[in-house]
Amino acid sequence: MARKEKTKLLPLKVYSLGGLDEIGKNMTCLEYGDDIIIIDCGLGFPDEDMPGVDLVIPDISYLEENSDKVKGIVLTHGHEDHIGALPYVLKTLNVPVYGTRLTLGIVENKLLEYRFEKQPELYCVEAGEVIKLGVFTAEFIHVNHSIADACAISVTTPQGVVFHSGDFKLDLTPIEGAVMDIARIGEIGKKGVRLLLCESTNVERAGYTPSEKNVGRSLDDIFSKNTDKRIIIATFSSNVHRVQQIIDISARMGRKVAITGRSMQNIVSAAIRLGYMNVPDGLLIDLSDLRRHKPENITLVTTGSQGEPMSALYRMAMSTHDKVELGVKDLVIISAHAIPGNEKLVGKIVNEMFKKGVKVLYDALVEVHVSGHACREELKLMHALTKPEFFMPIHGEYKHLIRHKALAEEMGMSADRIFVSADIGHVLEITEDGAKWNGTVPAGKVLVDGYGVGDVGNIVLRDRKHLSEDGLIVCVSTVDTRDGYIVSGPDLISRGFVYVRESEELMEQARQIARDVISESLDERNYDFNEIKNRIKDKMTRFLSAKTGRKPMILPIIMDI
Amino acid sequence: MARKEKTKLLPLKVYSLGGLDEIGKNMTCLEYGDDIIIIDCGLGFPDEDMPGVDLVIPDISYLEENSDKVKGIVLTHGHEDHIGALPYVLKTLNVPVYGTRLTLGIVENKLLEYRFEKQPELYCVEAGEVIKLGVFTAEFIHVNHSIADACAISVTTPQGVVFHSGDFKLDLTPIEGAVMDIARIGEIGKKGVRLLLCESTNVERAGYTPSEKNVGRSLDDIFSKNTDKRIIIATFSSNVHRVQQIIDISARMGRKVAITGRSMQNIVSAAIRLGYMNVPDGLLIDLSDLRRHKPENITLVTTGSQGEPMSALYRMAMSTHDKVELGVKDLVIISAHAIPGNEKLVGKIVNEMFKKGVKVLYDALVEVHVSGHACREELKLMHALTKPEFFMPIHGEYKHLIRHKALAEEMGMSADRIFVSADIGHVLEITEDGAKWNGTVPAGKVLVDGYGVGDVGNIVLRDRKHLSEDGLIVCVSTVDTRDGYIVSGPDLISRGFVYVRESEELMEQARQIARDVISESLDERNYDFNEIKNRIKDKMTRFLSAKTGRKPMILPIIMDI
Repeated sequence: MARKEKTKLLPLKVYSLGGLDEIGKNMTCLEYGDDIIIIDCGLGFPDEDMPGVDLVIPDISYLEENSDKVKGIVLTHGHEDHIGALPYVLKTLNVPVYGTRLTLGIVENKLLEYRFEKQPELYCVEAGEVIKLGVFTAEFIHVNHSIADACAISVTTPQGVVFHSGDFKLDLTPIEGAVMDIARIGEIGKKGVRLLLCESTNVERAGYTPSEKNVGRSLDDIFSKNTDKRIIIATFSSNVHRVQQIIDISARMGRKVAITGRSMQNIVSAAIRLGYMNVPDGLLIDLSDLRRHKPENITLVTTGSQGEPMSALYRMAMSTHDKVELGVKDLVIISAHAIPGNEKLVGKIVNEMFKKGVKVLYDALVEVHVSGHACREELKLMHALTKPEFFMPIHGEYKHLIRHKALAEEMGMSADRIFVSADIGHVLEITEDGAKWNGTVPAGKVLVDGYGVGDVGNIVLRDRKHLSEDGLIVCVSTVDTRDGYIVSGPDLISRGFVYVRESEELMEQARQIARDVISESLDERNYDFNEIKNRIKDKMTRFLSAKTGRKPMILPIIMDI
Repeated sequence: MARKEKTKLLPLKVYSLGGLDEIGKNMTCLEYGDDIIIIDCGLGFPDEDMPGVDLVIPDISYLEENSDKVKGIVLTHGHEDHIGALPYVLKTLNVPVYGTRLTLGIVENKLLEYRFEKQPELYCVEAGEVIKLGVFTAEFIHVNHSIADACAISVTTPQGVVFHSGDFKLDLTPIEGAVMDIARIGEIGKKGVRLLLCESTNVERAGYTPSEKNVGRSLDDIFSKNTDKRIIIATFSSNVHRVQQIIDISARMGRKVAITGRSMQNIVSAAIRLGYMNVPDGLLIDLSDLRRHKPENITLVTTGSQGEPMSALYRMAMSTHDKVELGVKDLVIISAHAIPGNEKLVGKIVNEMFKKGVKVLYDALVEVHVSGHACREELKLMHALTKPEFFMPIHGEYKHLIRHKALAEEMGMSADRIFVSADIGHVLEITEDGAKWNGTVPAGKVLVDGYGVGDVGNIVLRDRKHLSEDGLIVCVSTVDTRDGYIVSGPDLISRGFVYVRESEELMEQARQIARDVISESLDERNYDFNEIKNRIKDKMTRFLSAKTGRKPMILPIIMDI
């Protein structure tokens, strides 16, 4: 057994570069000697304190430094929080990528928009397949999720099996394809799993997540009762099974289906091309052909279920969509749940649609959405099947991870076998003797803003926040230090501070303060501009704060001729 | 009957200056001839698109213009969204204010921080009392809510009774005081209500809101199981009954109670002084005396249940509280539900506390909070009791109002008797012949930012948003138009755009663009500075957008000597 080889074996290192104490940006690495494999490569969305930032991706500097070790990236499924960082990561770490057919179909579509020195290598695998990556072998295992073709990954390492759950739920009546491969997971568990990495998204929810079929039943009912209305359904574009159900019901009820929204069109066409969706001939119609059919014979499937500004549904709600005008004869179904932080956006478009007289249905009213993640009983099932020696909860805020630890303890696992970390980059080391935290690798958030990757940091964000709350005042003047007098100015220019036309007196007083500071300095033959600028900042800030309760950013500029 | 006087009667006008298609800022007015009364005077909180704004209050310009008509302000209860605008409104509209004892106690406390030319007149009434205000009489009727001393208001007008529900729930086992005065509401309903104004907050929730007693039972259970821990409970300071229950349980379990957080201390002392809270002698201790007692004999009641930055709980979670340090021996209970928009803030402090090893309980895990608002069955009860001729749903986003309309229709009310408006200021006119929308009065949002009331408008907000997303670049130069040359500059100063030290080349290129524009103009003897500035803006924006995908605000400044 392993004991014999004890002296030969190296420790296995496991670390996440994202997904611990944060939502999204999932990326976990396994390292053994000169081999590293990466599971998932996701993006995260910016917090409120990152204004202007588009995306957040993992800091992969450690992997870049060890690029010769990295044998490949293995993908569990095609959601953004698992694949979204690929276009950025592959630029500097162009290693082979492995995933199932639909997952890679989505990745391919994504990569088209980026240029690479060397075209990325994508290798398609099927659930059940095993691939070899250096010392590792990785087996893809079918699970249910809110996207088709999702997998858990079982990695055999010299230190035993590491089982990564991916995102999963147990759906006993899935729309297409099989129930999660419980049998195979159980088999692997029987042989022995050293470490379970398990997602924690729904650990606060009791019971089981309902089957996707439930949504179908609700929609069926809604369609039957609204045969006089055009029906518009917004959902996540990646939820291929949801869209399939909408298509099936529409076909049965004699409705044509139009698809709108860029990501919805992309994913639906990829799903059809790859055989993940079954669409009767002639069912799909183009958005520009809407008028050729009676409204009550049409279903519109659209993006925008999170109320995203500029999405198709948002534009319909705000009357800025060029082809769809909503009115009293329309029924809109939002077949999704608002992701935390999006509640107000969704509420806004719902209100706007109601104002147009549209009938709106959403998850607070009927079961038009189910989660794609395991609730507590399903998580317990995963633990029961894998029976791991060690457990590390992943994919969640710290509160989720800690609750997931408690769940494992409830099931009889001893606390010292459970490894919870709030810190990405924290290295869990597994040897024949056990597991322990041992050191860290560099990890963090890299912000993507426009085309810039990593050029927006804390100072820039701090300034943006300051500017957004109190605005700014530029105070500009030209002086002649030779003769010691003010040539012109100081002039004040403000933005985002007060409505200047109604605050002329205030601005004039502020200007006077700056003028006095400069005059005094010049009189004293003090030409230390930095000092003068600081004095202007201090005095103006004190004055304006006392007068207005605000502290705009003050930018003094002094030019010497 | 009324028919006889038909020719003499004027129309009754009913309009809301806040609370329709928005959360908070509740204010409804009744106007008959030369008399106006106002029900509630609340504030709202700023949306994401109002950075830097502290509060939102109603635009009362119509009332200011008709100040001689305004006979008084009647308050239903002491929550901010019903009283919070008083300090601002009373400055220009100093009319008598009527409310119950606790409500006025809270108002008094609030007004202390503001100066008035003439001290506001506050008149205390009790539930059951009737006051006369011009042609109107207003009866205060006891209801249950998440603050003590809450009332509905029944206003008798020459055009019949207008019944305003206030915020309410039906609590059949209230902590102190009586069950909502169902009998009296029924009596009024029997005599005839012409118009019901009813709150709509929980219209999306089925069934009944649980009793406040349920929270007590949960807390009792939690306290019994955690006798070895110091307990910290965060809740809304205004929920006097919740705090009373915490005090009762603590007393029973032999714990001393310390109160922390300014608003919590204010309201608890007001509630004790006014007899709304019963505290055994010696139970309350000062925060600075915590060390004199064993931690497990202490309950700390604190603000911060919404995760508000700078609140006492936030500071404890972030280790910046000067008197309370949280650790593994502490149990923190968040006895509240996150208000939409605050989910992430609450999540943040929960995560931080878990990281300290604190045991944290919140409403996703146990029943430590109940709502203060009527669910659907309670709303139906209000309709059944008042049996109104007309109905206008209030207090809610449009989706709530429209759902409330549907609820009334379910109960048999015909749609043409229900008046839903998304627009504050919309005037509902009631005469002997019926009710109809008829015109509008000015209404809107006045933004409070620091000491400024109304000086921040759309332009300022648009600039703040722009600055927060892409930052700014100031481009300053001094020219000599007499001899046609650039004296100094152009220099670029950027904030919130890119990390300048790593973007020197980019900034130098941008500078060159500005320099070229100015040189060319001076060469052409073109001294139209506005035109030159616009050209700099355009060219730099195009250049930077192509290079970075961002469009910072460009502020060109040209000084002529």
